[in-house]
Amino acid sequence: MPPELVAAIEAIAALPGIGRRSAMRIAFELIKQGAPRVNNLSRALTQLVAAVETCARCGAYTSAPPAGERQTCPYCDSARRSSESLCVVENPSDVYAVENTGEHNGLYHVLGGVLSPLDGIGPEELQLPRLAERVKTLAAKEVIVAANPSVEGNATGHYIADMLKPAGVRVTRIATGLALGQMLDFAETQAISQSLKARVEL
Amino acid sequence: MPPELVAAIEAIAALPGIGRRSAMRIAFELIKQGAPRVNNLSRALTQLVAAVETCARCGAYTSAPPAGERQTCPYCDSARRSSESLCVVENPSDVYAVENTGEHNGLYHVLGGVLSPLDGIGPEELQLPRLAERVKTLAAKEVIVAANPSVEGNATGHYIADMLKPAGVRVTRIATGLALGQMLDFAETQAISQSLKARVEL
Repeated sequence: MPPELVAAIEAIAALPGIGRRSAMRIAFELIKQGAPRVNNLSRALTQLVAAVETCARCGAYTSAPPAGERQTCPYCDSARRSSESLCVVENPSDVYAVENTGEHNGLYHVLGGVLSPLDGIGPEELQLPRLAERVKTLAAKEVIVAANPSVEGNATGHYIADMLKPAGVRVTRIATGLALGQMLDFAETQAISQSLKARVEL
Repeated sequence: MPPELVAAIEAIAALPGIGRRSAMRIAFELIKQGAPRVNNLSRALTQLVAAVETCARCGAYTSAPPAGERQTCPYCDSARRSSESLCVVENPSDVYAVENTGEHNGLYHVLGGVLSPLDGIGPEELQLPRLAERVKTLAAKEVIVAANPSVEGNATGHYIADMLKPAGVRVTRIATGLALGQMLDFAETQAISQSLKARVEL
């Protein structure tokens, strides 16, 4: 194979969820479609990483603001969303998984991961101190922990409960209608919807 | 979602074999990895379409030659490959599928498709006249028709047999060890290998 074809197949196969055969198929299709198609794709991906940032308040993905303005997101900026309920997720992409259910009309808080002492990830490595701050500032009444259903996700939920319940905040955990180990951003919206409805007290 | 994220997901999902969820997963991963990863990918794809051309003789993929030189490919240029046997395929990518079997030590001839009168694709729309020329020039003794196993692929094989057998050329067709409708460039190498070995006279 021409070295440029080998290099392109390797670069495509390095993307998550794409095997070598799929990568070859994509490379052959791009050769057929030529430069305009590749330029469009490159432009879309370049703009993606250039323009998409995380909200300075909640950590959700948002478009870069005009120069000089503070980074916020449509959720934090919306007057129609309740600040009484905060949904805590691990990653920015999880926000869309929850949002698609239509069950949560409050705000979000992206942790940036879950507690994992063995990997050296403690509260300070995550947005947990900032969660306590925001709950106080917003006078939130409920924190819904929508971390992935895993041992670490559950431990993180209990940590949040211990941190916030003394202040009178209701802390809930989405129900484990999802199988242990299944990733939130790949689950069916219906399953996430049910687990939100059946959330249990911590 | 930020519009740049929506646009990137759409551009990724337009690639063959990638659904919307896979496209989202790839977009989120690229945001995480940032500009260097996207730049590498864009560069690989840009070089792919800029540098990969088709051989002026056989139509296989090859790297662009230095300016002024004629486009040829490693197969046509190889002194170790026999010009007595020509393997005819539909697409440039099919060359790799056959080559991976290690069963063919001759040259290739890419048709650019198969005969399909209903779609207005006759011999002149394909590299069929050029095949007759090359067989004569190379004094080839056998033409192996490795078009995909389909009605059109079989019809194209019979057309080639009618065209070349009067000149004393042996024309064979790879055995249909492949299921009708299955694509050559996605088949297991073993299955293609068997179908090459069991090829039948036309």
